[in-house]
Amino acid sequence: MTPLRATKGHGTENDFVLFFDEHGERPLSPAQVRFLCDRRAGIGGDGVIRAVRAAHVPEAHGIDPETWFMDYANADGSASEMCGNGARVFAAFLEEEAGVDLREGLTIATRGGERTLTALGDGHYAVGMGPWTIPHAARQADAEVTVRGLRTTRPGLSVDVGNPHTVIAVVDNDELEAADLSEPPVVVPPPAHGTNVELVVPVGESEGPDGERRGHVRMRVHERGSGETRSCGTGACAVALAVRAWAGEGAPSVWDVDVPGGQVTVRITDDQTVLEGPAVLVATMDVNLPADV
Amino acid sequence: MTPLRATKGHGTENDFVLFFDEHGERPLSPAQVRFLCDRRAGIGGDGVIRAVRAAHVPEAHGIDPETWFMDYANADGSASEMCGNGARVFAAFLEEEAGVDLREGLTIATRGGERTLTALGDGHYAVGMGPWTIPHAARQADAEVTVRGLRTTRPGLSVDVGNPHTVIAVVDNDELEAADLSEPPVVVPPPAHGTNVELVVPVGESEGPDGERRGHVRMRVHERGSGETRSCGTGACAVALAVRAWAGEGAPSVWDVDVPGGQVTVRITDDQTVLEGPAVLVATMDVNLPADV
Repeated sequence: MTPLRATKGHGTENDFVLFFDEHGERPLSPAQVRFLCDRRAGIGGDGVIRAVRAAHVPEAHGIDPETWFMDYANADGSASEMCGNGARVFAAFLEEEAGVDLREGLTIATRGGERTLTALGDGHYAVGMGPWTIPHAARQADAEVTVRGLRTTRPGLSVDVGNPHTVIAVVDNDELEAADLSEPPVVVPPPAHGTNVELVVPVGESEGPDGERRGHVRMRVHERGSGETRSCGTGACAVALAVRAWAGEGAPSVWDVDVPGGQVTVRITDDQTVLEGPAVLVATMDVNLPADV
Repeated sequence: MTPLRATKGHGTENDFVLFFDEHGERPLSPAQVRFLCDRRAGIGGDGVIRAVRAAHVPEAHGIDPETWFMDYANADGSASEMCGNGARVFAAFLEEEAGVDLREGLTIATRGGERTLTALGDGHYAVGMGPWTIPHAARQADAEVTVRGLRTTRPGLSVDVGNPHTVIAVVDNDELEAADLSEPPVVVPPPAHGTNVELVVPVGESEGPDGERRGHVRMRVHERGSGETRSCGTGACAVALAVRAWAGEGAPSVWDVDVPGGQVTVRITDDQTVLEGPAVLVATMDVNLPADV
């Protein structure tokens, strides 16, 4: 079989195998996705992203057929809606390998709806992450969260950024480090479809490059179904929304968020969050897909 | 910087990044090795193998300068002697990407001494693994091994195949599965430089393609310094030597060994073991090495 021309890249250490299939001629089977994501027998990645024009994707019916569709598959082969860190890497892939101009913003299609990608220069990209809600905004907390390694149960705030999150505050870095996220935190009441859980600690405040006040926090995340990860784009957005809600009136709307895999910045507007951060293309490659997968 | 032309491959899921540096012009720094082996920010691998002619390697002084030297580095950037599974992948790399003829056997140099690689066809290769000893051959066991998840402490047999191993027998597959190798087994008396520990269970006996009797076992391994791995070439050799010693006179000298990552075959002669098994080249790639590593 012809080797698959592919690229490996990562955004704050959330990593992906990407490839172009502009005319929809080479969709991969779930087994092929699993092979590519296999870190020992394959290439390795948290997911696979196929770049295909909307014209060739049934899910993108009604969208301008020339729109680039981000066909995202999880490492287990299942189709997925969107991934914030993956979208930045997708942006770098379009820009560096197809010469797409992203400086003024480009609308792409995903299973989670249309999104805007913007190149910020210096290997950084911005992704419009869509609408958010804090279901119980009037309260500081609406859940009780128990995390192994922390001495007490903590109040948590539910935040919805397209998927469910529960954010809890810890007192300092020592406590952030002490948390054992090798097991899922226990959230009461238990959300119907589970929840991602974020632990956050304040770092400080700074002045951004354009003079605006920026908050600065550090976080760890347990992703529903995946365990602890090096970075979670929607989780960073949820954390920024929660700490802004806790800080009350006058709190910054721009937050630098340290994740284990690096740093991202979240800009909050009334109707959505924008996730900014680095994307790195590590290698371009020809992959020998086994005949039997 | 010019991208690094490299290949990712694996032998029974022990995986490596390989590259040619025939004239010794591009040795990598430990930081560059760590970058390549980083499974999220880099490519991912258990180690890096540089193919360089002996003429350009101080450690290969006195060896025919045209000999290919397998310059093996661990994922932490440290130089290493040899790796049986890596040597098979190195063989596939020489054969497929440099057209080296391995059908009659080729002597290569390693930090662990010279080794012979032979192509067996169908993606399989044989590696001469060098001399072996069973220090206390007269005894069935010379150590007591405690493995988490097993109800009792087991007698273990020390086997030296260039590095130290302690092999213990378990009664069946259930017990093999029950062992928890997330922590190192405790070996008494404690070997001076630590030891790899193998758990082995009999599967049966078969007749090989050339009519010889072959033993068949299944194993798991805890590697000193690495934890449980999908495969360990010297561990498979140690297991074959131990079970042959336990079986006594008339036992087969050829053993099929199931490891979590696949199957290898060990042939025992009076003066050495030969490890046979598959090697797969997964992808060829151009890697963008970061300027700051």
